[in-house]
Amino acid sequence: MSDHFADRLIEAVKKKGNAICVGLDPRLSQIPTYLKKQALIEEKSPTKAAADAILEFNKGIIDATHDIVPVMKPQIAFYEIFGSDGVWAYQETLKYAKSKGVVTIADAKRNDIGSTAAAYATAFLGESEIFEGEDEVVMPMFDADSITVNAYLGWDGIKPFMEEGAKYGKGIFSLVKTSNPSSGDLQDIELKDGLPVYEFMGHLVDSWGSDYIGKSGYSSCGAVVGATYPKQAKVLRRIMPNTIFLVPGYGAQGGGAEDVKPCFNSDGLGAVVNSSRGITFAYEKMDEFDEKSYAEAARKACLIMRDDLASIF
Amino acid sequence: MSDHFADRLIEAVKKKGNAICVGLDPRLSQIPTYLKKQALIEEKSPTKAAADAILEFNKGIIDATHDIVPVMKPQIAFYEIFGSDGVWAYQETLKYAKSKGVVTIADAKRNDIGSTAAAYATAFLGESEIFEGEDEVVMPMFDADSITVNAYLGWDGIKPFMEEGAKYGKGIFSLVKTSNPSSGDLQDIELKDGLPVYEFMGHLVDSWGSDYIGKSGYSSCGAVVGATYPKQAKVLRRIMPNTIFLVPGYGAQGGGAEDVKPCFNSDGLGAVVNSSRGITFAYEKMDEFDEKSYAEAARKACLIMRDDLASIF
Repeated sequence: MSDHFADRLIEAVKKKGNAICVGLDPRLSQIPTYLKKQALIEEKSPTKAAADAILEFNKGIIDATHDIVPVMKPQIAFYEIFGSDGVWAYQETLKYAKSKGVVTIADAKRNDIGSTAAAYATAFLGESEIFEGEDEVVMPMFDADSITVNAYLGWDGIKPFMEEGAKYGKGIFSLVKTSNPSSGDLQDIELKDGLPVYEFMGHLVDSWGSDYIGKSGYSSCGAVVGATYPKQAKVLRRIMPNTIFLVPGYGAQGGGAEDVKPCFNSDGLGAVVNSSRGITFAYEKMDEFDEKSYAEAARKACLIMRDDLASIF
Repeated sequence: MSDHFADRLIEAVKKKGNAICVGLDPRLSQIPTYLKKQALIEEKSPTKAAADAILEFNKGIIDATHDIVPVMKPQIAFYEIFGSDGVWAYQETLKYAKSKGVVTIADAKRNDIGSTAAAYATAFLGESEIFEGEDEVVMPMFDADSITVNAYLGWDGIKPFMEEGAKYGKGIFSLVKTSNPSSGDLQDIELKDGLPVYEFMGHLVDSWGSDYIGKSGYSSCGAVVGATYPKQAKVLRRIMPNTIFLVPGYGAQGGGAEDVKPCFNSDGLGAVVNSSRGITFAYEKMDEFDEKSYAEAARKACLIMRDDLASIF
């Protein structure tokens, strides 16, 4: 396995024959009741029970889909909502996905000034030094393969992630054109030279990645480009040929296969397409609602998505 | 006490007679050895020991300064570096500061699309619903008075924080002009209409706050404006008269009292000035280095900063 993030990701996509990223965004209200009851049996705090239920749910999804899916992306907000116990479930989810050979993206959209960004980079991509001298321990914390970041602060807030990533064969996805309805509030504003902000950001991200291009031709500095804005994606694809796009907005947010097509290069590579609710909670839309088959339903949804994505080439 | 965030903050600043925000950014290598040894005595995981050492350190700082300082701001990266145990210390730090009557800012710079931003808002400002029906529990998780956010995604990523905040008397600080050297990479770029991006963002934040103005005349939608860019701060102060500025960059990052002056309105209100390392690790710069006096050194540093800030009016 390559020790370059982009190469590893491209290898995984080629091996599995698709560019699906499953978003692991557990919402407790949608998690099967039997898993919640099971988590509540032992004496424990409500947050620990919630964390256990989430983790079991995720393991079921990962077990049922890891042979199909190359990439998974847990969104940390849905874990932080249960405090430190939720964050524990987040770490365990990343660890479990990794153990099954899945490339992981910590969807955390972290951002800060350099010295603080370095702490985030260590936490998510590197290894933390705990104590010093005789008692020193060095261990990974979140140990994700990559992390989403927000580059409003510019290069010195991104550099620590790239440097730490290079040391450990890991990478980032930086927000460029996001999938939400208000993304244009800032991202679509026209600059003096005629470019909209998102396109300017695309150029920045592309240049930041130029020192981190692997054998695959792709850099470890990826971009987030929403499926809900296919016209903008087309422009970005052209100006960022070496950048891997992480594409949210497919499925529940309204994007279809035709909408994500512009995110790919002509070789069929260069993008991973995320679906969260559409996969993980597919069981809710089954003809015969059966919560115990949630993992199987997720697998079926992945196969349907795989065929859907295959149809565009 | 007012149930409006901005009013509460302004009240606290008036009561304490200064606008200091102490940044609680514990770096394990700088935490007194005796606290680390103490945390290591009991049998526990390295991350739990680190979390205990951090929390004890913070409690010492809070105990020694809460009668002087109106606001404290723990930066979550320095806790996430120890995984879920670190996040536990983060929650406990916020809780302890609150118990001492300090207004807290969760410096987390969270950002995402609406549905995900809502999960962050619940986690940091609101109350999480855990399980349903008979077993339902509703409890706060981080329970901060406010959170820093990054508005690259536009209004629908900010709105959930403002709505949740309004329910609980809490607020946000949205990045406008950050203190780091590369902040100009995007923030200083000129738009078609002649404004730089940071000024455009200032107008956005100002407009987002217009529905959330309290009796103090300030809104619960604050802005992050770095002390390292006083010229830009002067412009922002003029176009955002009702916005409270959270001002990083004083002290260790190079900003002085004269640099933060433009962040205040003529009434001496409208800004809180953060210092992290300069306060919490002041003991390292004492004439007679004594790690057991770290809390006392932090108190002295607060008094010096108070006098320094008072000198500008």
